[in-house]
Amino acid sequence: MRDHSTHKVGSRHEVIGALMSRWLFERRTEVVPVAQAQGRVCATTVVSKNQLPNALTCNMDAIAVRFDDFAQGMPDISGWERGVQWQFANTGIAMPEGFDTAIAIENVTVSEDNQTLEALDCAPDERFQSTSMPGSTLEVGEVLVQAGEVLTPTLIACLTMGGHVEVEVVARPRVMYIPTGNELVPAEIELPRGKNVESNGNMICAKLEQWGAEPRHHAIVPDDPDQILAALREGTAWADIVVINAGSSKGSDDWTCELLEREGEVLFHEVSQGPGRHCSFSLLDQKPVIGISGPPLGAEFTTDFFVKPFVDLYLGAAADYPPTVMAVMLDDCPSSPRPMSFVRRAVLRRDEDDQFVAWVHQADPDEPVLKGSNQANALIVVDKDSYGWERGDRYPVELRYPYTLPPRL
Amino acid sequence: MRDHSTHKVGSRHEVIGALMSRWLFERRTEVVPVAQAQGRVCATTVVSKNQLPNALTCNMDAIAVRFDDFAQGMPDISGWERGVQWQFANTGIAMPEGFDTAIAIENVTVSEDNQTLEALDCAPDERFQSTSMPGSTLEVGEVLVQAGEVLTPTLIACLTMGGHVEVEVVARPRVMYIPTGNELVPAEIELPRGKNVESNGNMICAKLEQWGAEPRHHAIVPDDPDQILAALREGTAWADIVVINAGSSKGSDDWTCELLEREGEVLFHEVSQGPGRHCSFSLLDQKPVIGISGPPLGAEFTTDFFVKPFVDLYLGAAADYPPTVMAVMLDDCPSSPRPMSFVRRAVLRRDEDDQFVAWVHQADPDEPVLKGSNQANALIVVDKDSYGWERGDRYPVELRYPYTLPPRL
Repeated sequence: MRDHSTHKVGSRHEVIGALMSRWLFERRTEVVPVAQAQGRVCATTVVSKNQLPNALTCNMDAIAVRFDDFAQGMPDISGWERGVQWQFANTGIAMPEGFDTAIAIENVTVSEDNQTLEALDCAPDERFQSTSMPGSTLEVGEVLVQAGEVLTPTLIACLTMGGHVEVEVVARPRVMYIPTGNELVPAEIELPRGKNVESNGNMICAKLEQWGAEPRHHAIVPDDPDQILAALREGTAWADIVVINAGSSKGSDDWTCELLEREGEVLFHEVSQGPGRHCSFSLLDQKPVIGISGPPLGAEFTTDFFVKPFVDLYLGAAADYPPTVMAVMLDDCPSSPRPMSFVRRAVLRRDEDDQFVAWVHQADPDEPVLKGSNQANALIVVDKDSYGWERGDRYPVELRYPYTLPPRL
Repeated sequence: MRDHSTHKVGSRHEVIGALMSRWLFERRTEVVPVAQAQGRVCATTVVSKNQLPNALTCNMDAIAVRFDDFAQGMPDISGWERGVQWQFANTGIAMPEGFDTAIAIENVTVSEDNQTLEALDCAPDERFQSTSMPGSTLEVGEVLVQAGEVLTPTLIACLTMGGHVEVEVVARPRVMYIPTGNELVPAEIELPRGKNVESNGNMICAKLEQWGAEPRHHAIVPDDPDQILAALREGTAWADIVVINAGSSKGSDDWTCELLEREGEVLFHEVSQGPGRHCSFSLLDQKPVIGISGPPLGAEFTTDFFVKPFVDLYLGAAADYPPTVMAVMLDDCPSSPRPMSFVRRAVLRRDEDDQFVAWVHQADPDEPVLKGSNQANALIVVDKDSYGWERGDRYPVELRYPYTLPPRL
């Protein structure tokens, strides 16, 4: 039997903070085509190489004229020749040389052969009317994207306008996911009696992709200390972050914490929060090794809680922590003190006054176990020192990723 | 000069509805690995091939015992042998044959050599305590994902648990993007005087990727009717949806509407809403051809407004239309009637009571033209028949994609 008496237990924020404080990472960058840079984090501040427009430009479909010809009011246009006193000018095109003012085509009648003006409905009010001055959209050297911004379609357009076809972005942090357990088999084979499908890996790697990391899904490792250590070392050699599953259970075949204590340093063996309290936080070869909870629901929570902050930190993007709102609770929560904090899935909605309301999610018993979590778009952390709430109280409710505006009741 | 007097002008919802009603499309499907199915739309309802667990399973790190041994209360365990009266049992593992009840390892003291029980802190309360019955997580035939659902990391885990390594998803709709205009040059070359960079394509293709479509970015087509028609036909031959930019301008070099009228059918030549009213809606070879506005800001709005609904319809996913909230307006909008509806960028926030508040976005004059739109996370449609608002009024405000919960003031 193992002695767990020296195991350190930390709160959610304590365990993250402790491991982050010890993580010395090098942020790699790479150059990618602007057209494929969506969702990437810009590594440097990028400025425009172009002036836009780079000539006086017409900003509507129009005819170009000289404002001086209108100095004494509407002139006699009967003898005007195309190319001399007027010319066609189109949206976004440089004004023909020598013309300074545009009149919208809707206010003009042109002859059948497009060579003569037959009528002008109105004179321009000022020189340069309906044109854009050089540089009015963009100047050379103007900032297009700041270092650290996530590249959206709009910012991709900015970079393109500024003459960039490539952009330096923060590399995706590499995350090795290691599933361990004699009971696990891959979904590819028919499930033997008493075995379980390794389903967390696909979920977690999908999350990692969504968050901008580069996941690698290790093959299932049996509960054998040598093989687990080999997998961990394969992880620390390649990855920035290693995720091992399960992470810190107390079973007779669970070696993760023992190995990490022997070969590295275990900062925390457990979290004072459920579901998924069997998580561990270690350093091995100077890389963070996060042991997450085994059961699917706990694995989902704990990956969101404990792995995402490390991916975010590496990317250096604007912190993307779950928005938390004070919602009016529509049910009661018993007010007895608990042995540890507990996370409950919740449903967050807006009422007709756009006020946030929430209630504890009760999965439909006919729904599959994880499926029921789809309706639950929020989490309520029932702290071990909090004494619950009554219907009508306001209580903090944390959105689940992706953080979309909650629907109406 | 062209005669625009027969041009049809429609409202935002009218033009979409008219073109959708005439669009006869075939929804293709494809089979992809579950591990790469994130964000895809499930084409069929998928049920479990597995029963989970498929044996009585221990649900904590524990020892396995027989409940009958506790029928008369706590037994004398001094002679108990491992493998006979008790055995180790771990989370997620089938209970050893012949045992029916588990006691958490924390409540057990085991001898140094792991063969003898030294103490049991408590007796089990009932048979099957701390175990899971076969099928309690998942039964064969249980629905994992409904047809039409977007596959999230959680649903990917469900499919994996159910024994699926591949899944049939709706194919990405193919969208051909055709940039036209003599003034356009690609960002790859140095910008000649009076020319403009083709920047809409990268933005729009990035949006299409984000929405789940498969974009193809056509090379720039000059303002030549034969070349434009060839590009349109290349588009209708490959794509489900063709987007042409610009779409329906009235300039002397704008051929799009004329060609589409001659070869296909133009349902609407213009939209009664700005910016970006020069949009057109046509059918060519039974494919929708959407002409969007040229200037970057109009191009962004009109792609969101007019192209996204067609991608959504093809994917058949839950409609993903912008959430609209009634927000308290923090500024005044002059109440004069307008010649057409106008879309204004807005900033939506929550105040300390989680009430939505909004104001018209005034871009910082030092920000580049599109950059300023980043702070604007919402849109206000000022209808031509509406008469504005005063500070403190509630007015509908539409979120911009992606629809995230607005930050606090």
